[in-house]
Amino acid sequence: MVFFRFSQISRHFSKFTKMSKSALVILAPGAEEMEFIIAADVLRRAGIKVTVAGLNGGEAVKCSRDVQILPDTSLAKVASDKFDVVVLPGGLGGSNAMGESSLVGDLLRSQESAGGLIAAICAAPTVLAKHGVASGKSLTSYPSMKPQLVDNYSYVDDKTVVKDGNLITSRGPGTAYEFALRIAEELAGKEKVQEVAKGLLVAYN
Amino acid sequence: MVFFRFSQISRHFSKFTKMSKSALVILAPGAEEMEFIIAADVLRRAGIKVTVAGLNGGEAVKCSRDVQILPDTSLAKVASDKFDVVVLPGGLGGSNAMGESSLVGDLLRSQESAGGLIAAICAAPTVLAKHGVASGKSLTSYPSMKPQLVDNYSYVDDKTVVKDGNLITSRGPGTAYEFALRIAEELAGKEKVQEVAKGLLVAYN
Repeated sequence: MVFFRFSQISRHFSKFTKMSKSALVILAPGAEEMEFIIAADVLRRAGIKVTVAGLNGGEAVKCSRDVQILPDTSLAKVASDKFDVVVLPGGLGGSNAMGESSLVGDLLRSQESAGGLIAAICAAPTVLAKHGVASGKSLTSYPSMKPQLVDNYSYVDDKTVVKDGNLITSRGPGTAYEFALRIAEELAGKEKVQEVAKGLLVAYN
Repeated sequence: MVFFRFSQISRHFSKFTKMSKSALVILAPGAEEMEFIIAADVLRRAGIKVTVAGLNGGEAVKCSRDVQILPDTSLAKVASDKFDVVVLPGGLGGSNAMGESSLVGDLLRSQESAGGLIAAICAAPTVLAKHGVASGKSLTSYPSMKPQLVDNYSYVDDKTVVKDGNLITSRGPGTAYEFALRIAEELAGKEKVQEVAKGLLVAYN
């Protein structure tokens, strides 16, 4: 008969549970629903544990084109948890709301100082500017947001996804698959992300 | 002083209200959330009046990657209304549920005999097969669904979107923008859809 101490089993188990990385996707009223959902769905396909957190609570969130989505939880409940990546979907209304939220500001600064990934698409890079996060880094955004970003960042016009250190940014709905796959690659590796891309019928190199 | 008869005003008004085309997007448990939301969002961007109808009622619907979406209404409430297009998003669970629904079968047969558009992506073309709709037409689907379709349809492997008469079909998440834009083109015209595509940062010719 073989006995295991609890600590041995626990260590053994945590080796496996640690394999799954985690993502927080913030869902604010007026979020661009395609950018939100492509991030959440693609990251889940890559085996990443995704938490969809409503900016203003756990109630249904009305997105930019009137699709209503139920978050998994409210942002207040998970704001002090650790996540491997914090994802900010675009949409003008959603980005403005996140830019005005001190909860989002605290969370992003804490994610930055912990060396965790931050990812923002479309109008959402302006949220970083408003909270003084990732200053000086290279980034991109929805083209019309450029004037709000050129002063504090090194703006990139000619790439669909830009990674600078722990910051990943992208441009709009048409680049949302590439954005989500780039985040997934960082957390789940190239091989996994190529398998996911193949399942999506998306080209990804 | 000038007087208008009510019927004159009403006719005048209906000239404008008739300009907006209508789409029914069916949301079934297990629907692929990206395919669902890209259709709903892109069609709304093109000025089409979109109704999101829950297959089993008006409650939140859990999609294939656990995103929960609140439909605008239940399918039962709008099944006898007229729509310019009926859109079936993919996802294996969602497509199986729609394939087993007599409500969906009746609705699709009625749409077909009225000469209205039917659009299906990914696994959803199998719903047409199960209900005996659009038999003999050219179509495509998610590649693994092909064996369920080759007997009753002329299967197309090498196109991302296939239109045959009033049927528009497509392959998967990676072709969902093109699918939605193709439907929008049919209802809102080429010029409008090119403006929408530009806003999405999607190439569309």
